[in-house]
Amino acid sequence: MATTKTYTVTGMTCSHCVEAVSSEIKLLPGVTGVRVDLAGGGVTVTSAETLDDDAVAAAVDEAGYELVR
Amino acid sequence: MATTKTYTVTGMTCSHCVEAVSSEIKLLPGVTGVRVDLAGGGVTVTSAETLDDDAVAAAVDEAGYELVR
Repeated sequence: MATTKTYTVTGMTCSHCVEAVSSEIKLLPGVTGVRVDLAGGGVTVTSAETLDDDAVAAAVDEAGYELVR
Repeated sequence: MATTKTYTVTGMTCSHCVEAVSSEIKLLPGVTGVRVDLAGGGVTVTSAETLDDDAVAAAVDEAGYELVR
């Protein structure tokens, strides 16, 4: 069943940052959608199964930003 | 003879922005180098001949930013 979870990511300052974070998260298996609120730093991820938060954090880190937990 | 001129560009917030502006300016004929100071907004362009400021402004606009004059 599809699940949705909203994470907080710091360091994003522009649309390029949004694109970088979105692209990395979309590479995670099972992810079907990513929506980013640049102003608030909210990153909402929809996936086929519940995601491993460590995997999401690693993807955000790979993009050059930080996931707040 | 090579010339160097420093412009001021507003709106750049991160390294992706720097890359976007640099890439567009490098497409201008005769440009041999672009150096960007993100914090101050300074964009220093080296070119084989003196550049048309309108062309530089258009390149910056194309990248999604604004050249201050």
